[in-house]
Amino acid sequence: MRVFMFEKPLGMRDTLPDVYKTKRALREAMMKEIETWGYSFIETPTLEYDETVGAASAILDQQLFKLLDREGHTLVLRPDMTAPIARLAASKLYKEGCPLRLAYAANVFRAQQREGGRPAEFEQVGVEYIGDGTMYADAEVISLMIFALKRAGLRDFTVTIGHIGYVDALFFDILRHEQRVETLRRFLYEKNYVGYREHVKSLPLSSIDRDRLLRLLTLRGGGEVVAEAKTFATTEVERRAVDELELLWAHINQYGVTDMVKLDMSLVSHMSYYTGVLFEVYAKNVGFLLGNGGRYDELLAKFHRPSPATGFSVRLDRLMEALGEGRNDEKTTCIIFSQERFAEAYAKAAEMRRKGEKVVLQQVAGIQDMDQFTASFDDVVYVLGKRGKDER
Amino acid sequence: MRVFMFEKPLGMRDTLPDVYKTKRALREAMMKEIETWGYSFIETPTLEYDETVGAASAILDQQLFKLLDREGHTLVLRPDMTAPIARLAASKLYKEGCPLRLAYAANVFRAQQREGGRPAEFEQVGVEYIGDGTMYADAEVISLMIFALKRAGLRDFTVTIGHIGYVDALFFDILRHEQRVETLRRFLYEKNYVGYREHVKSLPLSSIDRDRLLRLLTLRGGGEVVAEAKTFATTEVERRAVDELELLWAHINQYGVTDMVKLDMSLVSHMSYYTGVLFEVYAKNVGFLLGNGGRYDELLAKFHRPSPATGFSVRLDRLMEALGEGRNDEKTTCIIFSQERFAEAYAKAAEMRRKGEKVVLQQVAGIQDMDQFTASFDDVVYVLGKRGKDER
Repeated sequence: MRVFMFEKPLGMRDTLPDVYKTKRALREAMMKEIETWGYSFIETPTLEYDETVGAASAILDQQLFKLLDREGHTLVLRPDMTAPIARLAASKLYKEGCPLRLAYAANVFRAQQREGGRPAEFEQVGVEYIGDGTMYADAEVISLMIFALKRAGLRDFTVTIGHIGYVDALFFDILRHEQRVETLRRFLYEKNYVGYREHVKSLPLSSIDRDRLLRLLTLRGGGEVVAEAKTFATTEVERRAVDELELLWAHINQYGVTDMVKLDMSLVSHMSYYTGVLFEVYAKNVGFLLGNGGRYDELLAKFHRPSPATGFSVRLDRLMEALGEGRNDEKTTCIIFSQERFAEAYAKAAEMRRKGEKVVLQQVAGIQDMDQFTASFDDVVYVLGKRGKDER
Repeated sequence: MRVFMFEKPLGMRDTLPDVYKTKRALREAMMKEIETWGYSFIETPTLEYDETVGAASAILDQQLFKLLDREGHTLVLRPDMTAPIARLAASKLYKEGCPLRLAYAANVFRAQQREGGRPAEFEQVGVEYIGDGTMYADAEVISLMIFALKRAGLRDFTVTIGHIGYVDALFFDILRHEQRVETLRRFLYEKNYVGYREHVKSLPLSSIDRDRLLRLLTLRGGGEVVAEAKTFATTEVERRAVDELELLWAHINQYGVTDMVKLDMSLVSHMSYYTGVLFEVYAKNVGFLLGNGGRYDELLAKFHRPSPATGFSVRLDRLMEALGEGRNDEKTTCIIFSQERFAEAYAKAAEMRRKGEKVVLQQVAGIQDMDQFTASFDDVVYVLGKRGKDER
């Protein structure tokens, strides 16, 4: 099966000039906010060892792009930035003193199965806050995500916060076995609440336990959910999780962003490394996941530096979709000249460029179709032929 | 053979905060200059088909990172941006009217053979000017590269310009066979001039032809080289090449950058797709290649859109080395607070951040080693304990 010269691999996309500008502006806005919160941006390689970063990542194996190097090691195109940053923090940056506040704007790779589906390469902007186990760290990361999205121009969005420790404690207390817990958890991260209810009703449980599982879906809303969840918490682990959420809510309130936040005690993520508070952000008009994050206190131990950590990542492509078409108000002038008047045309272009204006300087003989070529410019100046004659 | 958790694949590197900032500032400076010349930035996928972009690229097959997709197609990590942009220009942008002025700042990938050697992933900033066969296009691309490097802060560098058409015409006129020509050309692109001379002397040639080949090495210098080369041009193709260089020199003079430029009639590139004027830029203090470019009038035909084109690319890692350590004059303040005084500390941080200052807000309980942690900040403010007591 031959591919045509114009084709790109499955899920791979080009970014044309207008989209590029919008994407760059959004990236810059988020980066600016993240930098004022004292985070340092870093870059890691596109390729990592499968044995290290590949294994530590929370992305499904079938979604990894893999290749073999000369020594027979399997390499992966990084599927997320959390695992590479954990490697980097554990190896090089730890000596700088924890907590570490790191940030990134980077492409990640997830192999896709179907034509016309999701992108296989997309950019994430995010942070990792490593070495601080207090709820201040969780509150900072969530609030920073909200501030950064607002700075990028997004208004109508909601951050949903949950606690994986609460869900797991409740499920294990009732179901006892990892496999049964996993089945139930899957309904939640697929947001298949009908399926969840049916499955719970089909289980051979006491009515009290069944009610506890069904009630989980109702524990959603504002700060009042904390008190409700506290009432129903049975195990010590559930109570600790609720206490953490209570503190978190108070801290987020300090940042003045509780109007953007909801609690959802049934929130579960597809990222398997989360250990505590976790969250997702949705844009209201489009309804898809813009980004997510949470606490992952066990990942750094895989790189031999046990340490609490939390972070968020936002998908730049989806943020762009949520914001809709960016207005591109940048003007480009085209100065078209003939050979004899090059000096004059260049002087004009150089002067405008010094002022920061965008100027294309084009020799008339290099143009194939004058109408088509000039159509793409806001302004065209002709410096052609006998001095002064055709200029306007 | 097991890899350690901290290891990265051969030639892969992390970019730590200070280097990240320097790199970003250089990229931004070059991008700003390129934009004022009316070029549009675009992005292409990291992965392309080997059959299309891989085959069209000028990078040696052994330097390509390859993997197989689900359908059995070979994919490559893009080894340069010229071939992907040719694909994009031929497929999507051609309808917008030529000439097209496109630009990029992107990582490219070249597999390395040895530990501790060259990077296998590095960033290039560059432009492609497609659809204009006049010498104005060559002069614009060369001058823009010079302006962009100056804008990035580079002062001491030289652009060497040659013409592959001239070298090839001379070699074929004397040697007749591609393989003999290739042998001689290899000495030139390896800049092994001693080897070149010895090889020429070993060939069974007339003294006239031997002198023509040896003289090639002496045709280096300023604008006067054009006249010399014209005197010695024997074939029609050599004469056309010299005429082009004469025009190019005049146009570059108009841009006021001839003091940065030298002619070298023996210049040959490792990029096999060049067809006419070609050039290299060297930083004087470090002596290595910062970037290169040239005319590639036959590449677009591989994507079924025959079209003249020229462009340049500069390696950001080498530009950074040439410029030396960047001074990082950005200040970060750390405000350390205890629980009771969070509101007060946050108010202070928020105020400073609104002014664009960089502020880390850190709960004291999240710090493991106070001395080590605070050492990395320019300024530390303590908002601890009983109001006013420990603040300074």
